Amino acid sequence: MAATLSIVGVGPGDPELITLRAARVIGSAPVVAYFCRENHPSQARTIAQAHIGPNAREMRLVYPFTTEISVNDPAYHQNMSAFYDQSADRLAEVLATGSDVTLLCEGDPFLYGSAMYVFDRLRARCNTQVVPGIMAMNGCWSQALAPMTHGDDVLCVLPATLPQAELANWLERADAAVIMKIGRNMPHVRQAVAQSGRLEDAVYVERGTQGGQVITPLAECNGKAPYFSLVLLPGRKRVR
Amino acid sequence: MAATLSIVGVGPGDPELITLRAARVIGSAPVVAYFCRENHPSQARTIAQAHIGPNAREMRLVYPFTTEISVNDPAYHQNMSAFYDQSADRLAEVLATGSDVTLLCEGDPFLYGSAMYVFDRLRARCNTQVVPGIMAMNGCWSQALAPMTHGDDVLCVLPATLPQAELANWLERADAAVIMKIGRNMPHVRQAVAQSGRLEDAVYVERGTQGGQVITPLAECNGKAPYFSLVLLPGRKRVR
Ligand SMILES: C[S@@+](CC[C@H](N)C(=O)[O-])C[C@H]1O[C@@H](n2cnc3c(N)ncnc32)[C@H](O)[C@@H]1O
Ligand SMILES: C[S@@+](CC[C@H](N)C(=O)[O-])C[C@H]1O[C@@H](n2cnc3c(N)ncnc32)[C@H](O)[C@@H]1O
Repeated sequence: MAATLSIVGVGPGDPELITLRAARVIGSAPVVAYFCRENHPSQARTIAQAHIGPNAREMRLVYPFTTEISVNDPAYHQNMSAFYDQSADRLAEVLATGSDVTLLCEGDPFLYGSAMYVFDRLRARCNTQVVPGIMAMNGCWSQALAPMTHGDDVLCVLPATLPQAELANWLERADAAVIMKIGRNMPHVRQAVAQSGRLEDAVYVERGTQGGQVITPLAECNGKAPYFSLVLLPGRKRVR
Repeated sequence: MAATLSIVGVGPGDPELITLRAARVIGSAPVVAYFCRENHPSQARTIAQAHIGPNAREMRLVYPFTTEISVNDPAYHQNMSAFYDQSADRLAEVLATGSDVTLLCEGDPFLYGSAMYVFDRLRARCNTQVVPGIMAMNGCWSQALAPMTHGDDVLCVLPATLPQAELANWLERADAAVIMKIGRNMPHVRQAVAQSGRLEDAVYVERGTQGGQVITPLAECNGKAPYFSLVLLPGRKRVR
């Protein structure tokens, strides 16, 4: 199969935070694919919109309804796995016709990106290239004016889906930390940060670099958090 | 002081991996500053070159000779601290005339960037804005086609300057890891990775996204590594 699957990171939200390479690859793509929820626009597509060619064919990869199933239920992972199988097959079908396909991805594709699950399934079956994107965390720490790692600081990137005790343990060891996938995990994230004694230094960022951006001390957050939010803990400035 | 200091990330080396925002900010900058070594071109300037305006004034911030002093010697940190004080003062002088200044930085400015030391000194003295950049690690993992974090994977970013035992300890705990600042630390990095039992999975990337890029299993590296090199350990694909 001679066609190429390009997986392109489009950054955290601000359309100006796309790279020149991403803009070029998207602009010349005959087929542009992206993940989205039913009846919702794709965030990645919205970011990339200005670069999509007028004759490009678009391919929506619509997530199955999974909110009724808990992520702790094995059925959740079975559903998602079947969905990624189908998505990979749909992309492979187009690639088999000799047409290149560009799959858009928020932030960087290889940091918790859905595109990785498709990449894992297609890497042996077609040519692939990956264009890196500005990650949510660096978009957010730039906006928060929060330098993260000085000298020998270790940075840990933690999913909020970890159990509270485990999160707190990582936060005690790490010099700098970023907690992603906050959403409904906000209450135990806040508790884990407090438990590690670092609540005073934690910064909450919601919709970083997007319209409606919120930057506030985590200590002042109480309620819920949306999907597009993360917590930053700048480093301790460790020098040997 | 009404002038603004813009700290702009220019990415890991490939000039196409600069963002549209970075290109715009650099293009309109009356003064472009960058760190460099004596008698060497600045890597950040080389990446950004095409965007620097024809009338821009350039300001070289030349690192003091520090290779004769070990980083373990307190004199090293005193020298560097004095150098950052001077650099901040030089930038402040230009800003005081009302002229904006753009300081270029490889990768992202707030991840182990020299620009952070200047930012720390000037943030209270002038307006600042930070433009995020593609980090060396995401440039490298995209080139290596190495998806890093699936599901609940924790990513640790580790400086190779940590002692071997400490590095090995982090590598045992982390799901995914990136080891930066390899250079002369290569021998103990390799040993730490082996000690943690993960040598088979480690990927070494030298000059990622630049001319002369090398991507190879760490197990096959023996000799020295240059400054622009890092090690990737893709995640364990942890699911609860
Ligand atoms: C599935 S992960 C994708 C991460 C993305 N690939 C990256 O490189 O940053 C989604 C998580 O990224 C974070 N995120 C993405 N965009 C964000 C934004 N603009 N502001 C704050 N957090 C964001 C949130 O924590 C969200 O739950
Ligand atoms: C002082 S740190 C700067 C990091 C940068 N601010 C970033 O966001 O990636 C320098 C280290 O970054 C890594 N690095 C920078 N550019 C690289 C490249 N093109 N390929 C491999 N490693 C690179 C090396 O580990 C190097 O020792």
